[in-house]
Amino acid sequence: MLDLVIIGSGPAGLSAAIYASRAGLDAVVLEKAGVSGGQVLTTYEVDNYPGLPGINGFDLGMKFKEHADKLGAKFEDASVLAIRPFGAADGGAEGAAADGANGYVVVCDGKEYETKGVIIASGAHHANLNVPGEAELQGMGVSYCATCDGAFFRGRDVAVAGGGDVALEDAIFLARICNKVYLIHRRDEFRANKALQEAIKQYENIVPVLNCTVEEIKGTDSVNAVSVKNKITGEVQNLAVSGIFIAVGINPDSDAFKDLVEVNEKGYILAGEDGRTSVKRIYAAGDVRSKALRQIVTAVADGANAVTSFQEDVM
Amino acid sequence: MLDLVIIGSGPAGLSAAIYASRAGLDAVVLEKAGVSGGQVLTTYEVDNYPGLPGINGFDLGMKFKEHADKLGAKFEDASVLAIRPFGAADGGAEGAAADGANGYVVVCDGKEYETKGVIIASGAHHANLNVPGEAELQGMGVSYCATCDGAFFRGRDVAVAGGGDVALEDAIFLARICNKVYLIHRRDEFRANKALQEAIKQYENIVPVLNCTVEEIKGTDSVNAVSVKNKITGEVQNLAVSGIFIAVGINPDSDAFKDLVEVNEKGYILAGEDGRTSVKRIYAAGDVRSKALRQIVTAVADGANAVTSFQEDVM
Repeated sequence: MLDLVIIGSGPAGLSAAIYASRAGLDAVVLEKAGVSGGQVLTTYEVDNYPGLPGINGFDLGMKFKEHADKLGAKFEDASVLAIRPFGAADGGAEGAAADGANGYVVVCDGKEYETKGVIIASGAHHANLNVPGEAELQGMGVSYCATCDGAFFRGRDVAVAGGGDVALEDAIFLARICNKVYLIHRRDEFRANKALQEAIKQYENIVPVLNCTVEEIKGTDSVNAVSVKNKITGEVQNLAVSGIFIAVGINPDSDAFKDLVEVNEKGYILAGEDGRTSVKRIYAAGDVRSKALRQIVTAVADGANAVTSFQEDVM
Repeated sequence: MLDLVIIGSGPAGLSAAIYASRAGLDAVVLEKAGVSGGQVLTTYEVDNYPGLPGINGFDLGMKFKEHADKLGAKFEDASVLAIRPFGAADGGAEGAAADGANGYVVVCDGKEYETKGVIIASGAHHANLNVPGEAELQGMGVSYCATCDGAFFRGRDVAVAGGGDVALEDAIFLARICNKVYLIHRRDEFRANKALQEAIKQYENIVPVLNCTVEEIKGTDSVNAVSVKNKITGEVQNLAVSGIFIAVGINPDSDAFKDLVEVNEKGYILAGEDGRTSVKRIYAAGDVRSKALRQIVTAVADGANAVTSFQEDVM
């Protein structure tokens, strides 16, 4: 029986692998994408991971993976279907199985792993607008994270697409850095909380563009305009911007675990800073965890915390 | 008035500086040591900061500092004496001062800074044994952090000095990696919790050395023995070890802030993952904060979280 199965190999999973390896734990990292790094891989430039300024996202993902490799971490290609308590059917003691005291079986397509504990670091993915130019210009002006990428657009005009809390928070964040921020929303009012709706009014350079949908993101090497259509008048307008921040939702990759651990209304796995979920010896780390700030720095902290909690719990 | 004063420039303070700079905040970092990096600077090798395997601690501290410099972060040499609410005496509105709604004055030796918010990232320092060889061999076998440095002693014999929770946790952590772990304590029983006392009995390679004090740490280029004296018999014994982990206490550098924010019984500033303390717009980040795991990865996460919380709070 393994000590730990780590599900996912983005920054959280790789940090967990580094900490588990250094702690002498028998751990295996399962990755379904065929390559490690997670969302970082498709990030054009990362400038907020201390010590490696301005690094290309793919390179950063590779550095994390090489670090784990150097420490002897074990990786396998596997897509996890479910986690079930290791019980009588597997030869464990009867009755004691349901609370995970006997460990778990991580069920994958064609293979199973028996383990004392599991760190779920399966990540999240951003919802897309699904308009022309979005995929083509990702990382070249199309971003899904203002905190991550806003600083690259200092003094420029940008757009934010969305009307929820995150969209308005992003608009405020960008208003401090950028020249002008178009805030494009398909409805006639934002659905963000009232405090945020009041807050954006204090920024003269935030320009609400209501009742409008993004039709196309334009540019060749990088974004130079966003085409928006007014749903009421039908008018199509070109907004000259250097970037667009798409904040129309984020989906945690927690489907395979929802029957086992408690999740919040958005599907994030409920766990505090220590990573402990509602179920013994199952931990959540990185973007899949319920938390305030989803960044590479918080993901690597999560990985370390989850391994440390596991060590305390199995002691 | 500044947006943020960041007190301390270890990994937490430098991460906060990076996030504040990228967010377009007007921030200044105050450092009393004359050089940035904090405890990392005196760490011989850091092997658990993902992406930079096996880096020298001084080099890592410099990389963090250069990253913040590149983003335009401002640094000043200053030792903080106190923080007080910006009030009537400073020209602010009367009455509204006490809750920090008008901001704060950070009082230093010879200079004051007016600011909307403060991130306290002043760190902590480990208690020393104060025996011959300890200072000389720090980083060459003398360590104050098993989680950080244990992996460097794989298969070797080591010692742990101390009898509290951390000492016993360190011994267990090391027992999985090392050949033999001497657990040296000056009293006739450990003061760690009972569960930990039971747990160490399960590791045959943990050898309790009770009623003994460390007299000297021996070695030239690196540690090769620890000399211990039995307080009852007076006998002096040499234990052949490659390393000693000193776990006799850690002291948060929070003295200047204890009258302002709530601290726990050990002096750590009470704050959750978001960094918010008991006082509005004062945040704690890094080793000075009450938390489970004090590591570089959790420090850099703290810095990012504190800046993000500030941005939400002043919005």
